[in-house]
Amino acid sequence: MGADLARRLAVARGDEPADTVVKGGRVLSVFTREWLEADVAIADGWIAGIGEYDGTEIVDAHMHLESSKLLVDEFARLVLPLGTTTVVVDPHEIANVLGTDGVHWLADLCHDLPLDVFFMASSCVPASVYESPRRPLLPGDLEGLLRRRRVLGLAEMMNFPGVVSGSAAELEKLALDGATHVDGHAPGVLGKALQAYAAAGIRSDHEARTVEEGRERLRAGMWLLIREASGARNLRALLPLVEEFGPSRLAFCTDDREPEHVADEGHINSMVRVAVEAGVRPEDALVMASFNPATWHGLKHVGALAPGYQADVLLLPDLERFEPELVLKAGRPVGEIPRPDVPEWVRHTVRIGPLSTNDFAIPWEGGPARVIGIVPDQIVTESLVDQPRVERGLAVADPERDLVKIAVVERHLGTGRVGLGFVRGLGLRSGALASTVAHDAHNVVVVGVKDDDMLRAVRRLAETGGGVVVIDGGIVRAELPLPIAGLLSDASLEDVIGASRACVEAARRQGCAPPSPFQTLAFLALSVIPSLKITDRGLVDVERFELVPLRA
Amino acid sequence: MGADLARRLAVARGDEPADTVVKGGRVLSVFTREWLEADVAIADGWIAGIGEYDGTEIVDAHMHLESSKLLVDEFARLVLPLGTTTVVVDPHEIANVLGTDGVHWLADLCHDLPLDVFFMASSCVPASVYESPRRPLLPGDLEGLLRRRRVLGLAEMMNFPGVVSGSAAELEKLALDGATHVDGHAPGVLGKALQAYAAAGIRSDHEARTVEEGRERLRAGMWLLIREASGARNLRALLPLVEEFGPSRLAFCTDDREPEHVADEGHINSMVRVAVEAGVRPEDALVMASFNPATWHGLKHVGALAPGYQADVLLLPDLERFEPELVLKAGRPVGEIPRPDVPEWVRHTVRIGPLSTNDFAIPWEGGPARVIGIVPDQIVTESLVDQPRVERGLAVADPERDLVKIAVVERHLGTGRVGLGFVRGLGLRSGALASTVAHDAHNVVVVGVKDDDMLRAVRRLAETGGGVVVIDGGIVRAELPLPIAGLLSDASLEDVIGASRACVEAARRQGCAPPSPFQTLAFLALSVIPSLKITDRGLVDVERFELVPLRA
Repeated sequence: MGADLARRLAVARGDEPADTVVKGGRVLSVFTREWLEADVAIADGWIAGIGEYDGTEIVDAHMHLESSKLLVDEFARLVLPLGTTTVVVDPHEIANVLGTDGVHWLADLCHDLPLDVFFMASSCVPASVYESPRRPLLPGDLEGLLRRRRVLGLAEMMNFPGVVSGSAAELEKLALDGATHVDGHAPGVLGKALQAYAAAGIRSDHEARTVEEGRERLRAGMWLLIREASGARNLRALLPLVEEFGPSRLAFCTDDREPEHVADEGHINSMVRVAVEAGVRPEDALVMASFNPATWHGLKHVGALAPGYQADVLLLPDLERFEPELVLKAGRPVGEIPRPDVPEWVRHTVRIGPLSTNDFAIPWEGGPARVIGIVPDQIVTESLVDQPRVERGLAVADPERDLVKIAVVERHLGTGRVGLGFVRGLGLRSGALASTVAHDAHNVVVVGVKDDDMLRAVRRLAETGGGVVVIDGGIVRAELPLPIAGLLSDASLEDVIGASRACVEAARRQGCAPPSPFQTLAFLALSVIPSLKITDRGLVDVERFELVPLRA
Repeated sequence: MGADLARRLAVARGDEPADTVVKGGRVLSVFTREWLEADVAIADGWIAGIGEYDGTEIVDAHMHLESSKLLVDEFARLVLPLGTTTVVVDPHEIANVLGTDGVHWLADLCHDLPLDVFFMASSCVPASVYESPRRPLLPGDLEGLLRRRRVLGLAEMMNFPGVVSGSAAELEKLALDGATHVDGHAPGVLGKALQAYAAAGIRSDHEARTVEEGRERLRAGMWLLIREASGARNLRALLPLVEEFGPSRLAFCTDDREPEHVADEGHINSMVRVAVEAGVRPEDALVMASFNPATWHGLKHVGALAPGYQADVLLLPDLERFEPELVLKAGRPVGEIPRPDVPEWVRHTVRIGPLSTNDFAIPWEGGPARVIGIVPDQIVTESLVDQPRVERGLAVADPERDLVKIAVVERHLGTGRVGLGFVRGLGLRSGALASTVAHDAHNVVVVGVKDDDMLRAVRRLAETGGGVVVIDGGIVRAELPLPIAGLLSDASLEDVIGASRACVEAARRQGCAPPSPFQTLAFLALSVIPSLKITDRGLVDVERFELVPLRA
C-alpha cells in the first residue's frame, strides 16, 4: 500500500482511469460465495474496485518446493499458468541438506519472482532424532528465520510425539517470538493426544486421511489442509466434510507433488476440478483454493477479488476444467522469468564414506524379520513380519515373495553409517533403485535385489551430486540428476520430466509396481509417518517412536 | 502460554488432573457449529482438552465503554454475569476529553480486571474538523497508542469522506505501523465510494442499517459488525443476511449502550436472544457473539471452547434466554472486583466561558431555517426546513410545532463558542435538557424552550463536573452527575440507573417523547453521521460534509 494509495482510491472512486479493467466476466466473491456481474479495476497491481470477470486467485496452503525437483524460477513457469499465484512453503528439504544457509539462499532466489513465495520456518530438522541431516536446526536458527520478512511462522511440527509428551525442546520452539502461527503434522493422532497437540497452539494439520480424523481436527479448532500429493492422495476421502460443515476451515494443499504430476494433472487447480467433479459447489472449491489458505496463513492482501487486495486474477473459461485462459499477477500478465545463477556450494552435497557390498550384508540365522509394507497411494506404511530367505548365513532379497532389501546411507558427512531392512509392495524383480530424495534428511535411500547393484547405485549418486538412478546388472539404466542439494535440477521442466519418466519406466521394466515408485521410496525414510520406516540409524517404529531391531 | 504449557499438555493427555472439569453439558464447537457431548478440562485458566458442557464465550466486537457511564470495574460487574468476557473498545470519548493521557489511564484501569478489555487506537479525534475536542490526536499520538500491548489496531475511521477522497491526513494514519487492522464507520456509503473506502484497507463496518448496505459491504470484503445500540438498533434489519450468506463474516457489537439498556435487556447475550427469537440457529447466533468477533480482531486465544483457548466458559441453562447460570473467566468464577482510585485530573474537565442568555439568542428576520429532524431509534437525522417562530426579531422555540432550540457550547477550553439551531422530534414542551455526553467531542449539548433554562442547564453542568441535567422554570428537576471527564460516574450501577431514569422521567414530564432522549441528544452533535448535525461551530451538513448556515 503506502504512497500510491491516494491514486488507487481515485481509481476506485472513478476519478482516474485504472491501469487495467477486466470486463465481460463474472467475479467470485469469496466472502459471500456468489458470482457478481462486475468489472475488476486494477491500479498499480492492486484491485481498486469491483464493477465483470471470471476468476479467483489460487494459493497453496502447504507445500515443499523441493518436491517439484525444479528451481523456483522453473516452478513458477510451471504453476503460474495453472493459476497458482502464491505458495507457502516449508523449505525443510533444503534445510536438512544445507541448513539455514540453504533456506536464506532459496528465499533470496524467490525475491523477484512473479510467484509470491512465503516461507514457514522448518521446525523439525531433523524430523526426529532417528534421522541424520547435515546439521540440526536449533531454536536460534529458527529465531533468525522467523525474523525474515516473508517467513510467516513455524512449519509443520512433525515431532508430534515430542509435542504431545511436552518435550522441552519442542516447547522451546513453540515459545519463540514469531511462533504464534504454527502448522501441524499429526498423522493418525486422535483422542487425548490430539487434544494435547492442539492445546500446544498448533492449529492446522494436513495429514488427515479419513472423515473421522478430519472431523476430530475441526472440532479441536484445527484447520484442515486437505492434501493431494503425488504419494498421498487424501482429497476425495475428505470432501464429505465440505458437505457436512461447509468450506470455512478447509484449505487445499499439495504438500509434495512430483513435476510430472503437476504437468499431467495440474496444481491446486486440479484439486478444484476433482472436488467439483465429486459434487462440491465450484464457489466452495474455489474458496478452499484461494481465500481459505490465505486466511489460515494470515495473508490479508491475497486470496480474494475485492478492493484493497493484490490483483492476482484468473480468467476461467469454465467451471469444469479450471484451466485459466489468462493469469494476472499483481495486475500484469506473467512475462519472462530470468534463470538465476546457482552457486557452487549448493551443488556438492553428496559425500559417501568408504563403502563396499559388505555394508549391505545382513547376517541372519533364520527367524522372522520386520518388513516395511507399502500402502498404495499413501505415505503411511504397514509394519509387517515375515521370514527372509537366508543364503550362506545372510538374509537376502526374495523377489518371488515381493521382499527386497532397503538401505539408507548417510550422505552429508560421509560417516559410512548404513541402516538396513526389508520392504514389500514394490514388486522389484532385479537391480536397484536409489535416490538422494529421501525425506526428510535426504540421505541416500536404496532398494535392491542384489547388494552389488545397490552399491553401484549409491556410488553413481555420489558421482552425479545426487538425484535418482536405476541400476540393473551393474549398468545405469536411467537417471535423473538433481545436483542442487541432491534435490533439485537446474534443467527445464521438459528435461526433468523426460528423465524422471525414463527412471519410472526403467524401474517398471525391473518389475516396480507403484505408479510413483521414487515418490514412494522418498517417504520410506521419513521417521514421523507411521508405521515402520528406515533411516541410516536403522528401523523406526513410528507408533512407539523408537528404533527397533530388524529381528521381529 | 509459556512455561505452564508442559503441565497443560499433561492435563490434556490425562496424565495430570485438571484444575476444573466442567461436566454434564454439551459444548458448542464454533468451528463445526455442532454441540458435542463432552467435558471441558481446564488448567491454569486455559482449556486443556474437551471431553461435556453447555457454553461459549461472548465477545463484543466494537463498543465505547463510556456509553455505559460506568467506570470499568462497575461495567465488568454488570456484563460478566451476562456472559460478556472480552470487549474491544474504542476509547474515543475519553480521548476527546482527556487526550492520550486519558486513554492510558483507562487502559491501566483495565489491567487487572477479570474482564478482558482490548483497545483500538481512536483514529478520529476529532471525528471531523467541525468538532472541538480538548485537543486533536495526531499521528504521533496514535503511533504511541498502537504500540501498547493491548491495542489491536486503528479504531473506526469515522472520517469516511476524508478516506474516500484520499485526504493525506487520513492516509497518514492508515500508513502507521500497527494500522494493518482497522475498523470502519461508513454510514450510508455505497457504490464507488464504498469501493474506495474498502480499497484503503478498512475491512469492517458497524453502521449498516439495511440488508442492501450489508450485502454490499460483505461483497467488498468487509466484516459486518451488526450493531444493537441504545440509540441505533440494526439487529433485526440485518438478520436476513445470516440466512442469505451464513454467519461467517458477521459479528455482534453494542457500540453505544446505556446502562439501563444493559440492566433491562442484557448485553451481547440480548442480541443472541433476539436473533434466535427471529429464527437464527442458536449455534450461528453464538458464533456471531463469540468466535467471529474474536476472529475479526485477530484474538486467537478467546472465542472458542477448544484446547489451547483461554477457559472463558458460560453455562447456559437454555438456548432461549441466554442468561448464563455460571460464568468462568480464565477458568475461575468471577470474584470480588476492587474499586479503583480516581485521580483528580480526570474529574475537573468542564470549563465554560462567560455565558449569558444572549449567547443563545438567534436574530432572525423571518424566512426558512434548517431543522434537525430526529429519526426514532436511529442516530441518523433528517435535514428539514421550516419557518421558525419569530418574536421581537429573534427566532424562538415553538413547542406547538415540535420545534425547539438546540445549542452546543464548547466546554474544554472555555472559549465561549456556541453553535445554535433547531430540532424537531423531541416533543419538548418546557424547560431544557443538557448533557456533556455529546459525541464525539463531548461539548455541552442543550435543547430547550427557553433561553434562560438552557443557560441554567449549562451552568449546572459546569458546577457538577458534567453529566446530564433536566431544568424547568430555572430549577433542577433531575440530574445524573458524571464527574469523570463529564462522561462517567464512579457511583454504583443502581445509583447511575436510578439517576438516569429520574432524568428520563423528568424529561418525559416536560413532553420529551424518544425512549432514550439523552442518547438521542448525545448523537445530535456527531458530525460524521448523516444528515444534519450541530457542533459548537454551527450546523453540519454531513452529506456535503461542510458547515451550513441556519438560514435554509
